[in-house]
Amino acid sequence: TGPSLHPKASSDLNSFVSRSHTCGELSSTDIGQEVTLCGWLQFQRQDLFVVLRDFHGLTQVLLPQDELNAELKTLLSEAPLESVVLVKGTVIARPPGQENPRMSTGKIEVQVKQAQVLNICKKLPFEIKDFIKKSEALRMQYRYLDLRSSQLQYNLRLRSSMVMKMRAYLCNQHGFVDVETPTLFKRTPGGAKEFVVPTQEHGKFYSLPQSPQQFKQLLMVGGLDRYFQIARCYRDEGSRPDRQPEFTQVDIEMSFVDQTGIRALVEGLLRYSWPNNKGSLPDAFPVMSYAEAMSSYGCDKPDTRFEMKIMDVTTLFSTVQMGFVQETLGKPHGCVKAIRIPEGEKYLKKKDLDSMMETSKEQYKQHITPVIVKSDSSWRSPLQKYMGEDLQKALCEASGAKAGDILLLAAGEHDTACTALGKLRLDAASKLEECGVPLRSPHDYHFLWVVDFPLFLPKEDNAQEMESAHHPFTAPHPEDMGLLSTEPEKVRGQHYDLVLNGNEVGGGSIRIHNANLQRWVLEQVLKEDSSLLSHLLEALESGAPPHGGIALGLDRLIAIITGSSSIRDVIAFPKSFRGRDFMSSAPDFVADEVLQLYHIQMVQIDCEVIQNV
Amino acid sequence: TGPSLHPKASSDLNSFVSRSHTCGELSSTDIGQEVTLCGWLQFQRQDLFVVLRDFHGLTQVLLPQDELNAELKTLLSEAPLESVVLVKGTVIARPPGQENPRMSTGKIEVQVKQAQVLNICKKLPFEIKDFIKKSEALRMQYRYLDLRSSQLQYNLRLRSSMVMKMRAYLCNQHGFVDVETPTLFKRTPGGAKEFVVPTQEHGKFYSLPQSPQQFKQLLMVGGLDRYFQIARCYRDEGSRPDRQPEFTQVDIEMSFVDQTGIRALVEGLLRYSWPNNKGSLPDAFPVMSYAEAMSSYGCDKPDTRFEMKIMDVTTLFSTVQMGFVQETLGKPHGCVKAIRIPEGEKYLKKKDLDSMMETSKEQYKQHITPVIVKSDSSWRSPLQKYMGEDLQKALCEASGAKAGDILLLAAGEHDTACTALGKLRLDAASKLEECGVPLRSPHDYHFLWVVDFPLFLPKEDNAQEMESAHHPFTAPHPEDMGLLSTEPEKVRGQHYDLVLNGNEVGGGSIRIHNANLQRWVLEQVLKEDSSLLSHLLEALESGAPPHGGIALGLDRLIAIITGSSSIRDVIAFPKSFRGRDFMSSAPDFVADEVLQLYHIQMVQIDCEVIQNV
Repeated sequence: TGPSLHPKASSDLNSFVSRSHTCGELSSTDIGQEVTLCGWLQFQRQDLFVVLRDFHGLTQVLLPQDELNAELKTLLSEAPLESVVLVKGTVIARPPGQENPRMSTGKIEVQVKQAQVLNICKKLPFEIKDFIKKSEALRMQYRYLDLRSSQLQYNLRLRSSMVMKMRAYLCNQHGFVDVETPTLFKRTPGGAKEFVVPTQEHGKFYSLPQSPQQFKQLLMVGGLDRYFQIARCYRDEGSRPDRQPEFTQVDIEMSFVDQTGIRALVEGLLRYSWPNNKGSLPDAFPVMSYAEAMSSYGCDKPDTRFEMKIMDVTTLFSTVQMGFVQETLGKPHGCVKAIRIPEGEKYLKKKDLDSMMETSKEQYKQHITPVIVKSDSSWRSPLQKYMGEDLQKALCEASGAKAGDILLLAAGEHDTACTALGKLRLDAASKLEECGVPLRSPHDYHFLWVVDFPLFLPKEDNAQEMESAHHPFTAPHPEDMGLLSTEPEKVRGQHYDLVLNGNEVGGGSIRIHNANLQRWVLEQVLKEDSSLLSHLLEALESGAPPHGGIALGLDRLIAIITGSSSIRDVIAFPKSFRGRDFMSSAPDFVADEVLQLYHIQMVQIDCEVIQNV
Repeated sequence: TGPSLHPKASSDLNSFVSRSHTCGELSSTDIGQEVTLCGWLQFQRQDLFVVLRDFHGLTQVLLPQDELNAELKTLLSEAPLESVVLVKGTVIARPPGQENPRMSTGKIEVQVKQAQVLNICKKLPFEIKDFIKKSEALRMQYRYLDLRSSQLQYNLRLRSSMVMKMRAYLCNQHGFVDVETPTLFKRTPGGAKEFVVPTQEHGKFYSLPQSPQQFKQLLMVGGLDRYFQIARCYRDEGSRPDRQPEFTQVDIEMSFVDQTGIRALVEGLLRYSWPNNKGSLPDAFPVMSYAEAMSSYGCDKPDTRFEMKIMDVTTLFSTVQMGFVQETLGKPHGCVKAIRIPEGEKYLKKKDLDSMMETSKEQYKQHITPVIVKSDSSWRSPLQKYMGEDLQKALCEASGAKAGDILLLAAGEHDTACTALGKLRLDAASKLEECGVPLRSPHDYHFLWVVDFPLFLPKEDNAQEMESAHHPFTAPHPEDMGLLSTEPEKVRGQHYDLVLNGNEVGGGSIRIHNANLQRWVLEQVLKEDSSLLSHLLEALESGAPPHGGIALGLDRLIAIITGSSSIRDVIAFPKSFRGRDFMSSAPDFVADEVLQLYHIQMVQIDCEVIQNV
């Protein structure tokens, strides 16, 4: 019967409408009542009974068997499934032995006295119960049918109720002001992924912003003190799996706050809005530095639901006479790292190990050396002949490797070795889970703060130049201010990411509130044209309070909480991974008059090119 | 000191931040406490005290006068106004006689012990207190300064808190589901005012919808049962005063509901969310037919805060021997209508009357005949010689005209005469108010439902063809179904408008849920290509429940409640009436690479034309 769809008992689901009850609420205590139900014909059992469905549940409706009511019986037993009907009747107890304990209404049925078919359903492209098996394109084309499934009803209702609780926490408990910011705005300098919107002014375009970043800061300059918004954001990334061209973030900004304040706020927000049936969250979420995340998990969004952390075994290898190990250790940041896969010998086949080594080689150019600790504690490993028994024993002790475990070793530059092992850690976990080893429970929700990110990174296409690791408004770590002009690459930012089960679900920072510092970062470090942000710089010198904030990715957060494999399962009308709406066929061609209104025309391109797109 | 900005007492305004109190909350009961305040320097009185301001209020900060603290005194008395400071000190009582009863914190001051200038304010383009006098363009360019005014803080906070209460009513009390619908969608057939958004697919565009109309209906087909959304909508109207290219509506849809259900829902919603200090709303709002609104008020959004209704005096004129009157009465819908302006003789000058008659002539081609009832009850009017004493007396009795009143009479086609008099009724009211006659109190909130609109109207450019009065999804009035194929112009729709103080603040309808009827309306009445809406038609035949809904114009509603003259005063970052953002200079030119990405180019137009735009 799927997850419970019952909203808060306190809300009146039957106000203002013609039904007296939903299809999910009648029970033994209602026996004898005259009721009116509205719903969809879910099931017909010969001409004995039908089952009516609505968002709230199912109710069995008993058909009359007397001659006088033959018409009523025919009406309900012959209307096509999924037709919408109104039924009036009396709640009666099901005969002994016919109760259905799996239905919340399973002890009763409704003896029908009157019925009306409100809308006939024509033949559907498929049966609703088979829907989940159909292709995603078909499901998206008939999204209104997919929405009738208990899973999507549950997801959308959970989303709504969780957002409502977030609002109550922010607005009612902590004095935040819900402010709507424009989505038709000016293009951000370097905002490569922003959709543009032509206007009737020749050559001039609005831009659909990727976030309300500038507005939330300007609201702080405007003295709003505490802002939040469930904000629609836009990003034109072309085809990307599990991304949407429009998405939603819980956008928050506060004045006079520091990192610990924002973290406490968000922890409180999530605890307050957390669904009752999803366990409870800890009073404070663990905090990990970016450096620690990289060295222990090989990524900046560690999945902390399971161990298998990356270990440093460099010192054990200082005497190992393998050419490439010694060569590696002689280089800057050279090291030897390891992960231990418990009982790996039992679960990983040779081809699994080969494929993992291949992955590491291909994606990270990192050679991996496996050690299989056999039942008699001897090794099967290319390393065996280079390490004496003492060293073997020392490595097993240092890594905790026991008989049956597998160690994966990586000798290389620190970040590369860690990143590769971080990937293999996740791959190994998936393999173990496929074999039935319970590592990451769907009922576990492990939040984690990652902090102390570098403020700047070398540009990918030119390592001599710097770019912001997050965005240019992030304040430097106060302890690192002195390094800004000398070694900007060593400056940590006051940025924080919120990670849930290995997914980034939020990120934010304390912002630069000093105009001179902001101008310096833009001009001297990032070599950008600061005049494009003159309105922001001017605002910062007009009495800007210290401020910071965060944005939570709502779609991703709800998807993880509901155990959905894609954010498309928590969005009412999602688009395909190519940004298409299969129901209405958007995007689509528009009439020439429309283009003329905006003074634009299409660039002619080769027809063959179009056909091959 | 302006309207109170205090949010609910229950919310903690000082959580997570460095201050202990806001600048608006300290009182005599806090005397002796050590406090930390953060705020803006609002005022400096020599070097005796400064006044600190935040969103919540003002607090006077007493400067130290001893030598030891000279530096502290200098810091606060010499920092530029609007600088942001943090102050620590002790709450003390003001000396007797120095209390300020107009300040909520007027009985205390804070004896400063430590202070820190968090951010220096450079010279502002003007003083904040003069801001309200500046041009709107300047205010919009420095919107972050304007936002510091108590009026804008009040407006935005009232908006946030009212929307929060609406959500609580819908979501918590009545089981509505808050569903986000896409804003990147397919162009609506005939959607002349929709912005388009180019995509990377050659020639293909999304459209920014004017409302979530199709989605809200599809959600009902999907069994969501009760949907709401505070929805961002878009409309490209070029230059229109007091319209915005993006605006917000409270969007609602329900299944199994009729008109009375929606009305009761909305009345409950407004009563529940109504600000405490704005009086109370009635249990049920009055309902008026479109026909009655037109004949009594000359418009479909009557301002019912005052009388001066339009009266029918046709029968009195049946014997009056004026050529054009008799000619008028001989025509279809010919009539004589009147409004009475109480004490009009005292308040309206001859030039006012002339100007009103001129307005009517110019805008409606409707001649107006005035009657001034003099103190001795005799008339000054061109009508005098055509009407005997008995008729004059009868007209005064019928209209309630007393000595000193003015009657304005219009003989003509019913709708024209009424529309003209409806306009003059509003003009006359403004004139009387200018003279100090209290007609429409700013504290009066008169809601009114207008119902029974015609479903179709003749097209403006071709009266032989019909178009939807509202939109093609509105269901016909059940009593008028028979007229659909014979006299569609006489069919009333199940549409309802919500009017507040003479402004339309909402509108909605019961929708067509039968696919055949919807197809018939589109094809046979409106002569539209129904294939463009095939997805909706297909949805209607897949088990669509009867459903209806409404959309409230949130910007307008909040503007009326806060007594703002423009919706720009209730929007954090509004655009100019030409759709410009003066702060960031949006819309703006974009780089050629951006256009190339979307395969578009600008149509070349004459340079002079551009310069003259």
